[in-house]
Amino acid sequence: MDETAKRTALRMLTYGLYVVTVRHKDHENGFTANWLTQVSFDPPMLAASVENDSHSIDIIRGTGLFTVNVLASGQRELAGLLGKQWEKAPDKLAQVAYHAGPNGCAVLDDALAYLECEVAGSVAAGDSTVFAARIVGAGVQREDDPLTMAEAGFRHAG
Amino acid sequence: MDETAKRTALRMLTYGLYVVTVRHKDHENGFTANWLTQVSFDPPMLAASVENDSHSIDIIRGTGLFTVNVLASGQRELAGLLGKQWEKAPDKLAQVAYHAGPNGCAVLDDALAYLECEVAGSVAAGDSTVFAARIVGAGVQREDDPLTMAEAGFRHAG
Repeated sequence: MDETAKRTALRMLTYGLYVVTVRHKDHENGFTANWLTQVSFDPPMLAASVENDSHSIDIIRGTGLFTVNVLASGQRELAGLLGKQWEKAPDKLAQVAYHAGPNGCAVLDDALAYLECEVAGSVAAGDSTVFAARIVGAGVQREDDPLTMAEAGFRHAG
Repeated sequence: MDETAKRTALRMLTYGLYVVTVRHKDHENGFTANWLTQVSFDPPMLAASVENDSHSIDIIRGTGLFTVNVLASGQRELAGLLGKQWEKAPDKLAQVAYHAGPNGCAVLDDALAYLECEVAGSVAAGDSTVFAARIVGAGVQREDDPLTMAEAGFRHAG
């Protein structure tokens, strides 16, 4: 395989930027994600790819719950902050304004909207795991353009 | 669940537009897809959600192969043509310029790039199936901005 072509082609894929939040009892976390897509209309489901060595994956596996926060155009800094590795910034969620959503996972005060998810299945995907999840709750906090990877200029593909 | 909020929130997710091509012996097809994302760096993998009642899903299940073509900004019409249901437009692929890629699946002459995929696993997702696939080949035909759902104004989310 032509490694340069592979990287270049993969970087042509289009992404938004989201913050996935998790909670287990009193412990909670949030991380920035872009490898995420709706996957079913009926029932409504989405899939998110989560790194196998991430702090949050065990929480997702244990609780089967997470919430997707849709970031707004202009929130590059917020995406960067929550994109820090948990090991290096275990208190990163405490640095942003949020409240508990109905399922207990954090809803960022500044997110456009959130989707509450219940894991329905998963498939191994190399260094990550793809969780297919039913959307069981949703809220819209305001309507605006979403933050995209193209706007943020981040590179998490290839 | 608030159905309006769910629909509104899901429509805030950001997507590109791609054409997935398949081949089984002399039969080939291509369909427009937006529910598609990279899911692993090492090995490089992507995941695509394919409708269970689509014509192409049996070909993907049978061959384990598909190719993702990355559409370019300005190719809304091409995306629309290949987005027609196969039952209503079984000859849709014949209406566009393409050539066979290394794995036999069509590479659109006007696509920016293509990624050849081998299915490694799948997970059921409501009305669709999410295929996690290893990227085993790639080519870049030209570099330009990709076509996004936002540009096309299509609605395939919610």
